[in-house]
Amino acid sequence: MKTLKVPEATIIRLSVYSRYLTEVDRKGIITISSGEIAEGVGVSPAQVRKDLAYFGEFGTRGVGYNVKDLRQHLLKILGLSADWSVALVGLGNIGLALSNFKGFVERGFIISSIFDADPNKIGTMIGHVEVQAVEKLEEVVRQNSTQIGIVAVPAAEAQEIVDQLVKANVKAILNFSPVVLNVPPEIELRNVDLAVNLEVLTFNVCAQRY
Amino acid sequence: MKTLKVPEATIIRLSVYSRYLTEVDRKGIITISSGEIAEGVGVSPAQVRKDLAYFGEFGTRGVGYNVKDLRQHLLKILGLSADWSVALVGLGNIGLALSNFKGFVERGFIISSIFDADPNKIGTMIGHVEVQAVEKLEEVVRQNSTQIGIVAVPAAEAQEIVDQLVKANVKAILNFSPVVLNVPPEIELRNVDLAVNLEVLTFNVCAQRY
Repeated sequence: MKTLKVPEATIIRLSVYSRYLTEVDRKGIITISSGEIAEGVGVSPAQVRKDLAYFGEFGTRGVGYNVKDLRQHLLKILGLSADWSVALVGLGNIGLALSNFKGFVERGFIISSIFDADPNKIGTMIGHVEVQAVEKLEEVVRQNSTQIGIVAVPAAEAQEIVDQLVKANVKAILNFSPVVLNVPPEIELRNVDLAVNLEVLTFNVCAQRY
Repeated sequence: MKTLKVPEATIIRLSVYSRYLTEVDRKGIITISSGEIAEGVGVSPAQVRKDLAYFGEFGTRGVGYNVKDLRQHLLKILGLSADWSVALVGLGNIGLALSNFKGFVERGFIISSIFDADPNKIGTMIGHVEVQAVEKLEEVVRQNSTQIGIVAVPAAEAQEIVDQLVKANVKAILNFSPVVLNVPPEIELRNVDLAVNLEVLTFNVCAQRY
């Protein structure tokens, strides 16, 4: 297949479409049109067709898409055909919220290890996972063949944690610490800054000035 | 000024640049080149110049940008010249993480009211803010002239909360509930799904297959 640069906005919409198709499938609906998907998630039908066109032809003209097939195909595109093992580092407020977030398991992201530096937290259980000392990170992550690390530690400690995750052979890192991190080019890194989400809103609220 | 459709990725990078300039300014540095900004935040110099070009000319060729001026200008573009009053609805794990998130205050987002439905939480203090019954939402938000609502309630309750926020005249809503919400066109709505961030990573990890 040819290599295409897929815009991040498209990837995010594919994720939204696949969730919507999960809902639709649960209702027992067999086929769906791009217009129905569009209406269900609040984008234009042309946008749905354009997003799907990056990955070839799915639907049948005049019939639409088979819900189960399209859902499976989108999950495969998103890398969600099989579960991912995730290590969570840092059990502050954000780490705690993430550790309890049901949306991860639903999409196949299994938090298989949790690490913190606080002796009061080490040894406690979060669901079925025991919180371990951050010193064990590299060893445990490597043993579990964990592919994804979530970093939710104070900014000053984030690079050190990321370096350990890289040594332990993770493929991707999701960073919630407000700091620019360095990783080798083969590691996928994504920074989440919760305040940025508000700033996109305020930009748009104020956008009439520009 | 002419109206331009500014890509969301540009808005997010402007937010990143402005944070970096805050750091640089604290170090007492007076001028900075687009190359130095680019290196500091990990994008190309051409990207920095392209992003800034949406909003007119800032720098002086061969001299670069005045750090304080550019930072102020970016904050103004992002709508951050003055503080925003924010109402937080829902004090589950994510709500609690958000209520303690220092990154909001730093950028001028002041959580001025917090609401929950749980009688055990109502009346408790989060910092200087008393948790109030969700029934008071519309009245309090209107009284405070709160412009932004953050929704972190269970999916089944999210639309009802959003309707109340709209009635109370907020301008923008940041939604953490995993559900598609309906708002009037004049209201800015942004949905944050923490799992989507992981899916962008797994897509990229698996992208060589497409």
